[in-house]
Amino acid sequence: MLNWDHIFATRSSRMKASEIRELLKLLDRPDIISFAGGIPDPALFPDQDFKAAYAEIFSGPAVNAALQYSVSEGYGPLRSWLAGEMAKLGVACAAENVFIVSGSQQGLDYLGKLFLSPNDTALVTWPTYLGALQAFNAYEPAYDKLSVTGNRTPESYRLAAAANGGKVKFAYLSVDFANPTGETIDREGREKLIALAEDLDIPIIEDAAYQSLRYDGEAIPPILALELAANGGDIEAARTIYCGSFSKTLAPGLRVGYIVASSRVIRKLVLMKQAADLHSSTINQMAIAHVAERGFDAQVDKIRKAYSHRRDSMLAALGRHMPEGTRWTKPEGGMFVWVTLPEGMDGTALLAKSIETEKVAFVPGRAFHADGSGANTLRLSFSCADAPTIEEGISRLGRLVRSEMTAAAA
Amino acid sequence: MLNWDHIFATRSSRMKASEIRELLKLLDRPDIISFAGGIPDPALFPDQDFKAAYAEIFSGPAVNAALQYSVSEGYGPLRSWLAGEMAKLGVACAAENVFIVSGSQQGLDYLGKLFLSPNDTALVTWPTYLGALQAFNAYEPAYDKLSVTGNRTPESYRLAAAANGGKVKFAYLSVDFANPTGETIDREGREKLIALAEDLDIPIIEDAAYQSLRYDGEAIPPILALELAANGGDIEAARTIYCGSFSKTLAPGLRVGYIVASSRVIRKLVLMKQAADLHSSTINQMAIAHVAERGFDAQVDKIRKAYSHRRDSMLAALGRHMPEGTRWTKPEGGMFVWVTLPEGMDGTALLAKSIETEKVAFVPGRAFHADGSGANTLRLSFSCADAPTIEEGISRLGRLVRSEMTAAAA
Repeated sequence: MLNWDHIFATRSSRMKASEIRELLKLLDRPDIISFAGGIPDPALFPDQDFKAAYAEIFSGPAVNAALQYSVSEGYGPLRSWLAGEMAKLGVACAAENVFIVSGSQQGLDYLGKLFLSPNDTALVTWPTYLGALQAFNAYEPAYDKLSVTGNRTPESYRLAAAANGGKVKFAYLSVDFANPTGETIDREGREKLIALAEDLDIPIIEDAAYQSLRYDGEAIPPILALELAANGGDIEAARTIYCGSFSKTLAPGLRVGYIVASSRVIRKLVLMKQAADLHSSTINQMAIAHVAERGFDAQVDKIRKAYSHRRDSMLAALGRHMPEGTRWTKPEGGMFVWVTLPEGMDGTALLAKSIETEKVAFVPGRAFHADGSGANTLRLSFSCADAPTIEEGISRLGRLVRSEMTAAAA
Repeated sequence: MLNWDHIFATRSSRMKASEIRELLKLLDRPDIISFAGGIPDPALFPDQDFKAAYAEIFSGPAVNAALQYSVSEGYGPLRSWLAGEMAKLGVACAAENVFIVSGSQQGLDYLGKLFLSPNDTALVTWPTYLGALQAFNAYEPAYDKLSVTGNRTPESYRLAAAANGGKVKFAYLSVDFANPTGETIDREGREKLIALAEDLDIPIIEDAAYQSLRYDGEAIPPILALELAANGGDIEAARTIYCGSFSKTLAPGLRVGYIVASSRVIRKLVLMKQAADLHSSTINQMAIAHVAERGFDAQVDKIRKAYSHRRDSMLAALGRHMPEGTRWTKPEGGMFVWVTLPEGMDGTALLAKSIETEKVAFVPGRAFHADGSGANTLRLSFSCADAPTIEEGISRLGRLVRSEMTAAAA
């Protein structure tokens, strides 16, 4: 029998089953109140719109095209619709600057493959989106901690990368209501990042998965829009690569996301996709285009209203039930609140107890840190729970944290 | 402006736009008779079955699951159905041995990522499936020519791989009616390959994309089935990794393919997919399962009848119109006939003339050779042309080849 361990390429050993994966299985246990999943509420899916979209595709002249092979860059009308949406965000671009991927997770994987060789450095925030770390890990980079307050010199990043045997290849960050923290980078922070990227001569990968889900506060232009505002509006000269998704707004099960960038980058990605999976599902791209063209804004309004109410419920419940010495973010959108417990408490140990005694699930924050720090943090998602459930779950969690703090002090 | 050439990882420079891509655009030119595309005839898609499948999904209890995130390994009922199909082919396995990918092209990409590090050697036939070379190229392997007649010693492969700075990591081949040659590896050849793989202690990647499309002759068990027949039926001890596809039988536009292997390999691939794109489209996996469970065999019968007739037409036309000194394969299934012109003739130059003067398209054979040889070969596809068109196109191609041979002799 073949000794597979000797035949797998080195990089496969970097991919470990994450604790998150196991956690998500808890979502199906009816006795658990789960704030763990980062998934949209299926009750808000525009299922009737999708039903109409597929029915129309099968009754119309596009049926053969829907079932056939298609081009790697994506479905033309969807790319054009997205170019129009990007213009509303301050990003003037053509359909040729838009590339369709099978969910924005695939976009992150391709960008890792495009830019990273082993020992290159990726700059990421601490914490950052776990899926980005998983995607990039396959290409064996080093990570350095991206400061969004600008308190590190470009030279310090260069030296750290050189010490790891490579160069800084990109900065990756989630800009609006980030997964996992719920925090938003302000305009000044975005402008500092552009300056840093210019100094280091690297691209910025702007993860905008939650961009549409703002519940209050003023919208901040994407980093890509700020870069274009400063360069005279020339996307071909932009270093920012914008990653978008339909998974939080329409539905994740179709696996349709997109990347907006200079056509130089798009062409490389298209060749990569041709080799990697030919193209994203034709019929699903058509269905997304159909639903988006007819009712994207109304759908976004609907989910904003629902999630905004849940966010309010969670923040209110945290205020009522969490003991002093804990703190949490106040997200203006998205799906997540990030809780910081007193130093010395461990989110993973807390989860084990919480499942056992309080029947409440969440994600311990350590997994989101490239260096394994963040033991005293938790991610809570409010997207899939109604207000009474949130109140009950946070009340239980507050009780547990309080009792742990008391025990630690004793 | 960022100098992208300095920032792209090395491997991206290996991915060049292929001439094939440009060629496929010719399919849309109404004045060209095209034997270039390797795509299924859309007139044979089971579109009414798919229409019913999507309608049922949207009217039933599975609609939320269809639109939601799902597990990386694939949709359970589809994995179970495939395990049943594999049993019919002599491969006893469980659903846990089946992994769903977004088209078998994605399977090849993942297998390249799993096994290949730069300078490792992949054994491939000369010629081989172009998409496999494109998928593997991203991982920068060396290639060595896989002999299916067994006229090379295992030691010769080992020495060649060592000279390239690595080890042999796998043998890849298409076994039935291969793209591009239309040829089938006989049982003896398959058994020799198993012995070679055992000697080299490497996996075999068995590309079975055309396995169902046999028009005559006796079916030969997959390499995986032969391996199991010899090892007592233990898939967990198998070194063969079987790659299957619904693209040639049901429809490519849904992007659903599969890999069957030991669960040791499947678990690695599932982790890889989780990092690379989370999972394949949930709704499309459900639709494929729905259509396959209700009418896979009837659909395969329908396309076999149609393609078998077209293959007969093409072989008859080649016999009538191609000059002496040319030869071609006699495929027992699939979509392709492989033509060998006299030494010294160049398929790429012939294509340019053919488009110009005869308005007939095909794929020059050089692209399918890892070493750039095969200049005097052509791939012809019969899948999308009716009998009169085949007769007319081959008649024109024969005229051109004859005139080129005459000119060369003058």
